[in-house]
Amino acid sequence: ASLCFISATLPSPNSTTLPLCRRGSYPPQQNRLYAGNPEFRTQFESFLYEMQDRFCSKLEEIDGKKIHTDTWERNNGGGGTTKVLQNGNVFEKAGVNVSVVFGEMPASAVRVAAPKSAQDVGAVGVDDKERIPFYAAGISSVIHPSSPMCPTIHFNYRFFDLDSHQARNGKVFPGVWWFGGGTDLTPSHLFKEDVVLFHEALKAACDATDPAFYPRFKKWCDEYFFIPHRGERRGVGGIFFDDLNCRPKEELMAFQRACAEATLLVYPEIIRRRLDMPFTEEQKRWQQLRRGRYAEFNVMYDRGTTFGLKTGGRVESILMSLPLTARWEYSHTPKAGSSEAELLQVLKTPADWV
Amino acid sequence: ASLCFISATLPSPNSTTLPLCRRGSYPPQQNRLYAGNPEFRTQFESFLYEMQDRFCSKLEEIDGKKIHTDTWERNNGGGGTTKVLQNGNVFEKAGVNVSVVFGEMPASAVRVAAPKSAQDVGAVGVDDKERIPFYAAGISSVIHPSSPMCPTIHFNYRFFDLDSHQARNGKVFPGVWWFGGGTDLTPSHLFKEDVVLFHEALKAACDATDPAFYPRFKKWCDEYFFIPHRGERRGVGGIFFDDLNCRPKEELMAFQRACAEATLLVYPEIIRRRLDMPFTEEQKRWQQLRRGRYAEFNVMYDRGTTFGLKTGGRVESILMSLPLTARWEYSHTPKAGSSEAELLQVLKTPADWV
Repeated sequence: ASLCFISATLPSPNSTTLPLCRRGSYPPQQNRLYAGNPEFRTQFESFLYEMQDRFCSKLEEIDGKKIHTDTWERNNGGGGTTKVLQNGNVFEKAGVNVSVVFGEMPASAVRVAAPKSAQDVGAVGVDDKERIPFYAAGISSVIHPSSPMCPTIHFNYRFFDLDSHQARNGKVFPGVWWFGGGTDLTPSHLFKEDVVLFHEALKAACDATDPAFYPRFKKWCDEYFFIPHRGERRGVGGIFFDDLNCRPKEELMAFQRACAEATLLVYPEIIRRRLDMPFTEEQKRWQQLRRGRYAEFNVMYDRGTTFGLKTGGRVESILMSLPLTARWEYSHTPKAGSSEAELLQVLKTPADWV
Repeated sequence: ASLCFISATLPSPNSTTLPLCRRGSYPPQQNRLYAGNPEFRTQFESFLYEMQDRFCSKLEEIDGKKIHTDTWERNNGGGGTTKVLQNGNVFEKAGVNVSVVFGEMPASAVRVAAPKSAQDVGAVGVDDKERIPFYAAGISSVIHPSSPMCPTIHFNYRFFDLDSHQARNGKVFPGVWWFGGGTDLTPSHLFKEDVVLFHEALKAACDATDPAFYPRFKKWCDEYFFIPHRGERRGVGGIFFDDLNCRPKEELMAFQRACAEATLLVYPEIIRRRLDMPFTEEQKRWQQLRRGRYAEFNVMYDRGTTFGLKTGGRVESILMSLPLTARWEYSHTPKAGSSEAELLQVLKTPADWV
């Protein structure tokens, strides 16, 4: 969902006739705004579309139902491909969205979105209102299975790239880029071995680039997916990061690929383990209550969702993250000692899984 | 839900030993903060508890199931009574909440909550951070029937009362009070004659006090319940007002009573008309989608809900407004010419019903 933030918060570029970005394409070189760094952008878009294809193939293989594809254009520059499998045999609702968008954003917004990266390049002295050309691309996915034994998963990997830009007042806004994203798991029934497998896979993906990443991004994830008014997290976490430019961009793309590959490996395995397990009506009802909390987090606190919706992003691509069905009961409290209470405990006090 | 805003946004008073407000009671006279105007507050509380009792009796009579009652205290002063009927024969979820709370709020918050009323009494020169003693009481209700033929209703009537107060810097914040509230209807299937009856009753209640009220508050309602990212309202409106002190408070309480009485009269009549009508699975599914929109509005845009949740109000009393069940489908569009499309048209472009 965070990607939709990108496609939404950033107002129109000078030219409204820029072509739609497609697989392997990027805005033409003759447009001075987007002249820089086309090779890396092409590589990154290929990574996004490859991951979308592979995830969707896997979803179709598990589910047996064909995924639906919508290709859309963003009025102010760029577009995307949204793939959704709804009312499937295994998945109640599963969406995988790729966005590649570009335009102009105020210098102040750059500094808010990526304070560290902006500071690193000295992008601090430019007028707040100066409009900086940007390019942003990412993949975002939320997968809600029908069975309460199978967890919901969310992942998002994105790249922001701003060329250096001479402002109207003669000042130069230096080029700046950063990565953001993560993967997190939301079970309604806690199978500890699944959560351990999930975290182990993400830790291994992190460690391959930097052993400092996993502890930092695991903590960041627990903080980000907190629902303050419930005093609980929406799930059992994973990793979350933003404003990341501490290594060469090729290395950080490799890091994102490693995380995405880990997700592609372990999520189907977790589904395979749980898919045929029987469940009770009570467990289904509990799943529905957890889906209500998921919806609460997404529309109240998720930055991508709220900014996207409030600033005119593609509503259906943003809200594809919402569950097909959800439930709110007045004053529902799980019985002490129940598996529901056990899950709630972990959501209130995050555990270390690896 | 708006009342929960009151019980939530306003931090602790000097004394934490103030007694819980109960029917017919108010904070003791010896506390200088709340010495003024006890008779009117008592009358208003009686009105609230009377309406709660009568609404709940009517709900129980229609449903056949007994309503559940929770009495709660607010840490920082006051408390309330929340009544909920869940999983009933007729009502999926129906809640009626009364709150009577008091404490201190910053002068800046008074001016934001009721700019006109505050200006009327000259409460503009006091330091923003000066803490003003307040009293606030109200009734808030959301009723979600099971049948998609029966509409959801929401109503809320509240009264704010701030005594004059000498600030630490010697300035005096003059006494100020105001009323807020309204009633609005959210059908998932449009029966025009029901909507006409509903608006006629509210118009008559308004006209008895001031013929200018209905047109003004009907428009305000259409504006308030707008979901910007959907380009539609959550329902077919009704009335909404706030910051109202244009007449003596006894007259405005009588106006609120007339509105509440009108609601108590017409809502059961509308339920009676539609309760035994057959409906299709398609209509039930459409109702669930509309409930998703209802949840979106409440947690994203309703001021009472969002402020209440973000500032520590009683979560279960605030979120009792959420439907028991809701649904989100990707890119759902009603067929042209269908009754669903007809409703959507009215939600996008509000009609004049009387």
